[in-house]
Formats: sequence, structure tokens, C-alpha cells
Amino acid sequence: MRVDGVPASPGYAEGPLFDLDRPPARYKAKASADEEQVALANAIGKAVGRLAALVETADGDAAGILEFHIAMLEDDALSGPALAAIGSGQPADVAWRAALDGEIAGYEASDQDYFRARAADLRDIRDQVLRALSEDNEATAPPGAILYGEDIAPTRFLETDWSVGGGIALRSSSTASHVAMLARSRGVPMVVGLGASAAPPTGVALLDAERGRVVFSPSPAEIEAFRQSASAFADRQGAAQTFLTAPAVTRAGTAVRVQVNIAYPSDVDGIDIATCDGVGLMRTEFLFGKTLPDEETQYRAYRKVLEWAGDKPVTIRTVDAGGDKPVPGFTVEETNPFLGLRGIRLSLKRRDIFRVQIRALLRAAIHGNLKVMFPMIATPDEYSQAAALFAQEQAALAAQGVAHQLPPLGIMVEVPSVALAPEAFADVAFFSIGSNDLTQYVMAAARDNAAVAHLNSVRHPAVLRLIAAVTASGRERGIPVSLCGDAGGDPAAIPALIEAGLRDLSVAPAQLAMAKAAIADVPV
Amino acid sequence: MRVDGVPASPGYAEGPLFDLDRPPARYKAKASADEEQVALANAIGKAVGRLAALVETADGDAAGILEFHIAMLEDDALSGPALAAIGSGQPADVAWRAALDGEIAGYEASDQDYFRARAADLRDIRDQVLRALSEDNEATAPPGAILYGEDIAPTRFLETDWSVGGGIALRSSSTASHVAMLARSRGVPMVVGLGASAAPPTGVALLDAERGRVVFSPSPAEIEAFRQSASAFADRQGAAQTFLTAPAVTRAGTAVRVQVNIAYPSDVDGIDIATCDGVGLMRTEFLFGKTLPDEETQYRAYRKVLEWAGDKPVTIRTVDAGGDKPVPGFTVEETNPFLGLRGIRLSLKRRDIFRVQIRALLRAAIHGNLKVMFPMIATPDEYSQAAALFAQEQAALAAQGVAHQLPPLGIMVEVPSVALAPEAFADVAFFSIGSNDLTQYVMAAARDNAAVAHLNSVRHPAVLRLIAAVTASGRERGIPVSLCGDAGGDPAAIPALIEAGLRDLSVAPAQLAMAKAAIADVPV
Repeated sequence: MRVDGVPASPGYAEGPLFDLDRPPARYKAKASADEEQVALANAIGKAVGRLAALVETADGDAAGILEFHIAMLEDDALSGPALAAIGSGQPADVAWRAALDGEIAGYEASDQDYFRARAADLRDIRDQVLRALSEDNEATAPPGAILYGEDIAPTRFLETDWSVGGGIALRSSSTASHVAMLARSRGVPMVVGLGASAAPPTGVALLDAERGRVVFSPSPAEIEAFRQSASAFADRQGAAQTFLTAPAVTRAGTAVRVQVNIAYPSDVDGIDIATCDGVGLMRTEFLFGKTLPDEETQYRAYRKVLEWAGDKPVTIRTVDAGGDKPVPGFTVEETNPFLGLRGIRLSLKRRDIFRVQIRALLRAAIHGNLKVMFPMIATPDEYSQAAALFAQEQAALAAQGVAHQLPPLGIMVEVPSVALAPEAFADVAFFSIGSNDLTQYVMAAARDNAAVAHLNSVRHPAVLRLIAAVTASGRERGIPVSLCGDAGGDPAAIPALIEAGLRDLSVAPAQLAMAKAAIADVPV
Repeated sequence: MRVDGVPASPGYAEGPLFDLDRPPARYKAKASADEEQVALANAIGKAVGRLAALVETADGDAAGILEFHIAMLEDDALSGPALAAIGSGQPADVAWRAALDGEIAGYEASDQDYFRARAADLRDIRDQVLRALSEDNEATAPPGAILYGEDIAPTRFLETDWSVGGGIALRSSSTASHVAMLARSRGVPMVVGLGASAAPPTGVALLDAERGRVVFSPSPAEIEAFRQSASAFADRQGAAQTFLTAPAVTRAGTAVRVQVNIAYPSDVDGIDIATCDGVGLMRTEFLFGKTLPDEETQYRAYRKVLEWAGDKPVTIRTVDAGGDKPVPGFTVEETNPFLGLRGIRLSLKRRDIFRVQIRALLRAAIHGNLKVMFPMIATPDEYSQAAALFAQEQAALAAQGVAHQLPPLGIMVEVPSVALAPEAFADVAFFSIGSNDLTQYVMAAARDNAAVAHLNSVRHPAVLRLIAAVTASGRERGIPVSLCGDAGGDPAAIPALIEAGLRDLSVAPAQLAMAKAAIADVPV
């Protein structure tokens, strides 16, 4: 039986299905309350130990989640009530579940999205301790399995051994989920949106995450065809590696700059600077977590990447909070956050917070080839206001005698109003097309909503027409234009982007080789 | 002290402030539990009576809300627990408040927006009965007052006597709120988004809802200037009435068609068909309330308007559910509903429901000059699918010998992808530009979010450029183009729309005269 979904991370996997939604194994009750309390304390310790081991191998974003889980597990506020309930006669699993379910219900009742999202973290923690309690070794997916279920927790992804293959097949979820991002960066094949009617979680399956489909209980002929496709994909990947170290050129010899997008300073640790033309997008949302970052923390993060890149450019984007990236104490709750107070709109509203980031950027600029860009610009006035703040902070640093430099200031082109009238932005140093947001606004289809995923295509003629118009306008007026959305690293989209006139793409580090290989195949 | 906000309904009002957020008067406890129970039952009856009286004067949308409130008040599930609590010794006000607050908390804890919105209805009901209990006559705003507070309940708007003036000034809320729509259709001046720092609710104020500002405790000079502006506005309104009965022409003699937008069949009762060129937009969301409408109910609603319009065109839009218009059992909960499964996307997904509407439209078409349009079209494929369903249902009706007619089928131009590539829609009978949605997507600024209201302007060059491009494309290929968003009735936007080539606008009935007057002032 073949079921079609949406590809979230390309690749192929063949293996037994592992049911993500299976209930945990039964807990064997102990003889006394004392023993129950010891069992719970041990299980919490075991869960913390597992998470701590995962932190070692996780990148910044994933490590942040895990550390948050560890902090919650080590908080007496969670274990205290459970230990007390054991004292009055409950078994450890019942007591722990009751204590956590109470907390979860409290978070779920919140009218703040941020707190409701914390309920998912608590469920994850609850299940980890229950698994440790029941010593449920089968709760870990065997290497090479295809993890199949409604959705998947980040810790589940992180604790799974992907070294011998395997993949992920989900009935709901989206290509923009946290695990989808992790899967793409680790090269784990993943398909989402298979729908409620998909098959039962038993037997062997074939996961084709290039086309976005799963074959359950395949026939010999289906297995044969699948293995040919998988092998062809592996060949293309292998061949792509030979392109990694050389500059990218099309078949006709047109040079294309290929930079990388990074989300954490630590992302550059695994990249050879010789394989890319710089950092086309360094996000700064990682700095805005549970608390707002101070100037020094930001300065050090920017400086690390600038020094790594040497004389190659590093384009840092000022914080794009809001949208799907809430920050407590900074962003606001909105009915349509993608159309709300986010990106530069929020920074211009909270200038106290913006000025801290500006000072850190001005100081870091002396350590390399920095460029700064503003997200979600919709009008020339917003750019002027942001640029004026840079000028003010520069003057203040000069007056204080602090070493600094004013970097070139550019804008993201992601709001259609900018792409439709780019000539209104005569003063900007560069344009960087954000194809993800631009596409979702042009198609009026949220990029994290599976129900409208069929509309959300960068290759729609209207989106490509806008990209071509911005590129042409930039060339006419001598303003460099690059593109830093997911489309830049998608071999299926690259020919259309080159065709539209782009000669500067910024891609996820894991996509560098395939992107260069795809460029080499473009005729123009 | 002058405070700036956002104009929600134009006009001027001068008068005493009435504090919307004042606590209700104290209830005087009775001698026995029996008397308390009688007092509560009386108060509920009084509240129902008040609401029933309001229903008489309310239009369809407002009447729907009021009938929902009456139904809840008459439900024993609300009064039962309160009467029981009185039996065990509580006074009526405490018992009622506790019973309602329990229900409200339950709705507020829901993760469904629809149910959370019901909490506001329950709060409204709670306060109405508390006011009836305390016989708080001062709880009704005196005629001519300026109602001032955080936000305003629809029943508060409906029970206020607006015949001698008065207006609304709100610290938060938005121009897209239900009360804002009511205020525009009744001509009640209203300003929203005044912000938390606005003045205390005492003394006299000047409400300038043309510019969107309030002056608290005005000086004599401020009063003098205000009265001049108000008088000039009244003169313009009076003069506009003389334009109402004649066809609209610009100063240079260019004819412009002016049609009306309606939301309920009953809306046409107050309109002389001779004053307009037809119905440019008949919404059908009113049919999709607590239950899904049957074919006969829809047929009768469409037929009423078609017969009223005679041979003038009536353009009915197939249901645009989703977005900010949830329908239980039809729409789905989404993080960004404006970018989600709404309009034609939802109709194509729920074809069972769509086919009922199509049959009602085909049957109603024989009673007048019907045109049908689809909302939220993003790709030519969606139009083809919708048109194919019309052809299928037409064939079925023909086979059954049911009288019917296939109306011309057009599309809304509100998703930027359509406006950017209108030539891809060669088969459509007409284009109707939905300027509200088009603007919010082009500017990436939700139209109901006060925090980004400064970006949400139809007069931004990028939006006007798109409108001009669609109009030119239609003219070239012989496809009629009209516009049916709020901009069509906004005197400040009309010159730019005529300039962009539009010769067919559809406006709210209350804006007909002012729109024609504004057109007469356009030079081209």
C-alpha cells in the first residue's frame, strides 16, 4: 500500500516500522513506599543521565531543548509532589504521572502559546521518566527502523541511532517542525503529512523521502524499484561531494556564489570555510531564548563567526523574533503571527532591546567582513529608522572611544511590497531574498501548514517573476542581490533561480555539495 | 491632552466620557433564599427581555449574536447551578457570578479559538444579569456620551441610543472588530488603538474619528477648532446625499459603476436599488453559523436578493469560511488562519458542503442577473476544479429536470499570486479585487492587528501597482475588473483607485453617497 505525504528531508530508507505511539511498558510495583521513592529518584536520575549524554552530541538548538528538560527534571517542584504521593501509598508510576499531568493541564489551559508549547516539553519529560521506571528497553527504536506515528518529540530524534540508516514517517507534523530541521541537517530521510488513513505500524516499509511517499508491506517488485531509486540517489550524493571543494559554475561556465545559512555560532565548527563563499545568513534568534541577551554575549557570538570566516563576508540578520519564533518578554501573542509584529517591526518598537544588538554588531564589525540585514522590511521608512539607530549608536561608541565599525546595511526581500517596488530602496547596500516568507505571502499559504503545502511553492510563476524583477532591479542599480531561503539549497528549484538571474545563493551547510552539483547541471 | 489612535468609523463627537470599564453597582442582598432565587430569575428574565427588544432593531449579524445570548440565558445549564448555590445560602449575585465564572474558565482553557471566543459571550451575559440584579440604571450610557474603555461588547453598542450623537474611543481593539463594522454601517464615529497610557475616563472629550484622535479635557481653542472640522464633515456628508440618486461620474465625465457589498439578504431592505449599479459582493458566511445550511435555506436567501435587484447584477461569493470567520464542523484550528485553509481551499476540500451551495446557486440563477465568484483563488487549477463542480451539478440538475441556469463564474483577486500573473486565468468571466486581503498579504500585515495597522494601507505604491496591473490586464483581454474591498468606499483611496484604471467599485451601503461624491471630485 502506497501513501503519499510531503517530503521533509530527502533520502531513502528501507526497514521495519517502529510505532512512535505505542504505550510504555507496564511498571512493576515495589514492596514498600520507601522502595517506590527510591525507584522514582533512580528513574529521574537515569532520564537526566540519558539527556546529558545527548547534549554532548547535540548542536546548539537541540542542546538548548535538552538542557531545558534537564533543568525541569532536576527541579524539586516536579518531583516533590510525586514523592509525597508515594508516601501516602501510590506506586511510583501513578504518582509521577499524576504530578506531571497536573502540571501539563495547567500549561495547556494558558492562553499564551508559549506556555501551551511547554506542555509538550512536560509530556516528553513525563514519558522519559516512565520509560526509565519500567526499564522499557524496547522503547528505543532499533537502528535502521522507520519511526512511524502521529508526530515525533525532539528527544526521540536525538536519542535514535541514525548511523546505519532509518527514517521518519509522520501522519501529521510539518516540514518546518524542529525535528524536520534537525533531519535535514543530519541527512535523515523524513516524510510528513501522510494523513490519518495511513497504514498500521507493523511490518517492513519503504520510505522515499525524495518524492514524499511510503510503501507499507511492499511487493518484491516495489522493493526492486525502490532500491534502484535509492541507489541512484546515493550515487548523486556521492558525485555531489566532488563538487564541494570547487567554486560553483554552471555548465556554460557562469560563476555562482554559494554561501551558507547558520543558526548558531557552533554551526561553523563543522564547515570548511574553503567550501563556501561566506555566510549569507547568520540568524540571531538563538540569542533570544528564556532571557534577553546582553551586549557581551552577542558580541562574542558574532566575533566567533567573523573570525572563522576570515575575509569572506558574514551577513548577520538582526533578530527576527515573532512569527513562529516567540520570545517571552519580547514578542506578543497574535492571531496571525506571520502577519504580525515580527522582525524589524518588533525591533523598532522595542528599541531598548534593538540598541543592544546594534552595539554588539558595531563592535564585532572590526573582527571581519561583516554585513548586517534587517528582516521583514515592508517600507523604506522602516529601513531609514533602523539605519538611523545604527548611526546614533555608532556616534555614541565613538564618543566613548570604543572600537567599532559601521557595516554595510541591507534588507531581506520577503514582504511582497518590497519585491514589487524595490526601486523605493535606493539607499540599501544589498538585497537578500527570503524565499520562504516571500512565497508564503505571495501564495497566502503559511509555510508550516500541511493543509496548504500544495500551494506553497517557490516555483510558482508569480514568485519566480518577483524574484526575477528584484534581481533585474538590483543589477540595473548596482545593488547586489542574493537569496537565502530553503529554495537556494533545493536542486529542483536551483535551475529556475539561476534562470531568474540570481548568481548568489545561501544554503544550509548540509546542502552545499548537492547545491553546487545542481548548479553545475544548469545549462545557462 | 491629545491621544492618537486609528480611525475605525469616520465622524465627530463631542460629549462626556462614559467609562466602559466601571464595576457594576452593588447588589442589595434579600432576606431569604427564596427571595434570592426569585430575584435571580427576574434578573435573567429582564436581561432576556432587553436582548429580545434589541433583536428587533438589529441587522442579521448582530441579531444572530443576540439570539445566541438569549438561548444561553434560557438554558438551565447556566441558571441551575446558581439557583442551587442560592439554596445553600449564597446571595444571588455571588451565586450567578460563581456559576458563570466557572463556565467562562472552562471555555478559556480550551485550545480551540472558537470556544475561547465564547468566553467573551459568557462574560457579556454574566454582566447583563448582574446589572439587571443590581438595577443599575446608570450602567447604560447616556445619549450623546463618548464610550471609552479597553474594548466594547456588541450588546453594549446595540443597547446604546446613538440618535443624538456620541461615539466610541477604545484603548485596544481593531478596525476589523464586529463593533467597528456595526459602527461604520450605522455611522457612529469610532477610534481604536489609543493605547494604555490614555487619559482617565472623566470629563468631556472631543472624538475626531476622521483623523483618529481624541482630545481629553480640551481647551477652548481646541473645542473651537474641533467644531469647525465637525461642521465641515457634516457639510460634506450633506452634500454627498445629493449625489446618491445619480450615476457616478468623475469631474472629467468618466462613468464609474458603484455597486454595494452586502452581508445579509435583509441588508437590501434599506437600499433603493435605483441608487446603485447592483450588488458587487454578496457574502454567504451568514448562512454558516452554528450549523451548516441546507440547500433550500440558501436558495431562498439568494433568490430574495436577485429578485430585489431585478435586471441589475448580483455577484454572490461562495463561502469564505476560515481566516477570521470560523465555522464549527467546517473550518479547522490554525496558527495563522489568514494564511490557511480558507475560502475556495476549504470548499474544494469539503466538496459535500460546497456542492450544496453550488446547487442552491444554480437554482437561484433563474431569478435574476446572477454572477458567482470564488474567494482566495491562488492558482488556475483551483478555478478549474471549482468550475468543474458547477458543470457536474448543472448536469445533475438537468438530468433531474430541475430549473436552473449556469451563471458567469469569476474570481476574487486577493492572493498576490493572482494579481502578479492574471494572464494565467484566461477562462474566468470577471475579476473582483479584494483590496482588504490583497493589502494584508502584500504588506504582510494582518488587517485586524492594531500593532501593524500603520503598514496596512491600500495606498502603498506596491498595492496600487498591482491593482493597476490587474485592471490593465483585464482591459487588454476583455475581462471585466471591479473592486469590492473597504478601499472602494473610502474617499481618501478613491482617487488612487480611479487613477489605477478601475471603473467599477463595490462599497458598503452606508458609503454609497460619500463614494459617489468622492468620485465626482476626481479630475480624470
